[in-house]
Amino acid sequence: MPSDQNQFRSGLSGEERLIERYFKPLATVPTAFGLGDDAATFTPPAGCDLVLTTDGVIAGVHFLPGDPPQSIARKALRMNLSDLAAKGATPAGFLLSIALPANTPESWIAAFAEGLGQDINHYGCPLLGGDTDRTPGPLSISITAFGTVPQGMMVRRASAKRGDIVAVTGTIGDAALGVLIHRDADLAKKWRLSSAASEHLQQRYLLPQPRNALADALRAHASAAMDVSDGLAGDLAKLCRASGLAAGIEVADVPLSDAARAALSADPTLIERILTGGDDYEILFTLPAAKLSSLRAAAAHAGVPLAEIGQVTAGQGVRFLREGKVLSFAAPSYSHF
Amino acid sequence: MPSDQNQFRSGLSGEERLIERYFKPLATVPTAFGLGDDAATFTPPAGCDLVLTTDGVIAGVHFLPGDPPQSIARKALRMNLSDLAAKGATPAGFLLSIALPANTPESWIAAFAEGLGQDINHYGCPLLGGDTDRTPGPLSISITAFGTVPQGMMVRRASAKRGDIVAVTGTIGDAALGVLIHRDADLAKKWRLSSAASEHLQQRYLLPQPRNALADALRAHASAAMDVSDGLAGDLAKLCRASGLAAGIEVADVPLSDAARAALSADPTLIERILTGGDDYEILFTLPAAKLSSLRAAAAHAGVPLAEIGQVTAGQGVRFLREGKVLSFAAPSYSHF
Repeated sequence: MPSDQNQFRSGLSGEERLIERYFKPLATVPTAFGLGDDAATFTPPAGCDLVLTTDGVIAGVHFLPGDPPQSIARKALRMNLSDLAAKGATPAGFLLSIALPANTPESWIAAFAEGLGQDINHYGCPLLGGDTDRTPGPLSISITAFGTVPQGMMVRRASAKRGDIVAVTGTIGDAALGVLIHRDADLAKKWRLSSAASEHLQQRYLLPQPRNALADALRAHASAAMDVSDGLAGDLAKLCRASGLAAGIEVADVPLSDAARAALSADPTLIERILTGGDDYEILFTLPAAKLSSLRAAAAHAGVPLAEIGQVTAGQGVRFLREGKVLSFAAPSYSHF
Repeated sequence: MPSDQNQFRSGLSGEERLIERYFKPLATVPTAFGLGDDAATFTPPAGCDLVLTTDGVIAGVHFLPGDPPQSIARKALRMNLSDLAAKGATPAGFLLSIALPANTPESWIAAFAEGLGQDINHYGCPLLGGDTDRTPGPLSISITAFGTVPQGMMVRRASAKRGDIVAVTGTIGDAALGVLIHRDADLAKKWRLSSAASEHLQQRYLLPQPRNALADALRAHASAAMDVSDGLAGDLAKLCRASGLAAGIEVADVPLSDAARAALSADPTLIERILTGGDDYEILFTLPAAKLSSLRAAAAHAGVPLAEIGQVTAGQGVRFLREGKVLSFAAPSYSHF
């Protein structure tokens, strides 16, 4: 559309050249039409529902402008893959919308596309379409991903049951600590972290590991699930509110990495950051006790660590208990507003 | 995820409150789960393909920050509906990603949601999910829409045939002139436009009228189609390039509104702006001559005006002919880069 700050060119436009060079090679499935049409198609398998989700990132808000373009691309896609995993869905494809500042070097775009291509292959989630724009603001990426589940089988947030076990994959709090070190390297010294521990936490911030390997098992056994993006405390509160129930969590049972444990022993106040900071992209879920052994077996088979951290109860609210006392937080959940 | 410039709050976060108040009331289909889950579901009708498209707008690039929030919302959705129309698809739903500057008044959001709600109802295209963020940059909206077509029946860009007629819906160039007047009211005087003519052009810029009523007829009769968003000249060049063919267009046959005709008679150089400016959201398509009468009847029934403007030929490139001479353009197509 018309705009004074944009240019007109003859032949292939700059936008077309950019798409041709960097994004078309990623759109290898035939129904993406090489990004050369107004739309892509997708033929849904019989008897399936589509699961649709969208999540975006903005420079200076969700990542630092100097972060590696490869990991920015991969994280943007993985945030969406994590939502699909938590819903028990198999990734089927995504659309990418990207707004680039005028001074974005072509090498940045090349590296971004390289990272995206790695994860497209790794997760088998094809690029189907996109939209590129120039922006006078910060670089912004919005991804809409979709997956498939057998009809009616998406794992909901609102379906936890009283008496269910509360469980979580992986470890909690790494990324929330990692982003602090990433911004201020002195913190690693203050927390007396080894360079390996510091690197581990930063990597957990830069490159989430979505738990797509657990999707089928969640669909078979979990009563409710969501991914942990805004912090364990706030996300569990959302799950409980949606289900009309409460939960009690044993802080000692929340799984921590060795690196997070080291930081916490240097500064015990970090427990709030760990439990509320977010960016974990682990899966928080509930399940009846009778299903625990089946899920444990499936998780072991998928190579995904699990921890039981508490129980769903009647009432409302989430209580975090440490040595029998209720922990209270200044700010239980991340919010953009 | 964690960020210093954002706040933590207890209970329902500001983001949740915003979604609850303004967007949840728009997400009325059951499988949107009231925007209260990580994802929505959609059960595809048997024997259909999904048609997927994404298009976004940024304040100061695609619209003026002072434009009415209702029309910004409606235009963002209609840009996507226009893509679905050109592909012969029936709208099925969309996901909205919106990034708001911190100083966005709540009244702006209320008006935006009101406009969006109008078009959700008018076009029967439900809101299924979304993502809200704060941005230090300009207000940005990205929409991913999807529709359905019978399997394998999406109308492509790349399938024009030699000898096909080139046709277009509605009138061309109105929005490209309208945005100029919208930015500089003196132009309406310079072009000696009535206030009704000036208003018509500006409305065509603010609120496109996507041709979804023609989708079934295009699927039945068109050989190739795309919507005109980057200008007739550039978009026809894309269609021809994708099809490996050329086209010749009679400029005198390109349909103009009375308002555009009045502006053009005051300033004949505006012909380039009209043919290349974009933001038309009309449909450009090709069809065999044998199908013309059927398509004309279907278009008349749908209330969509049609004009034949030229022919698909062998070779490459698009020639615009005026009184037997080839018109050349300084900048044949809008590009963001």
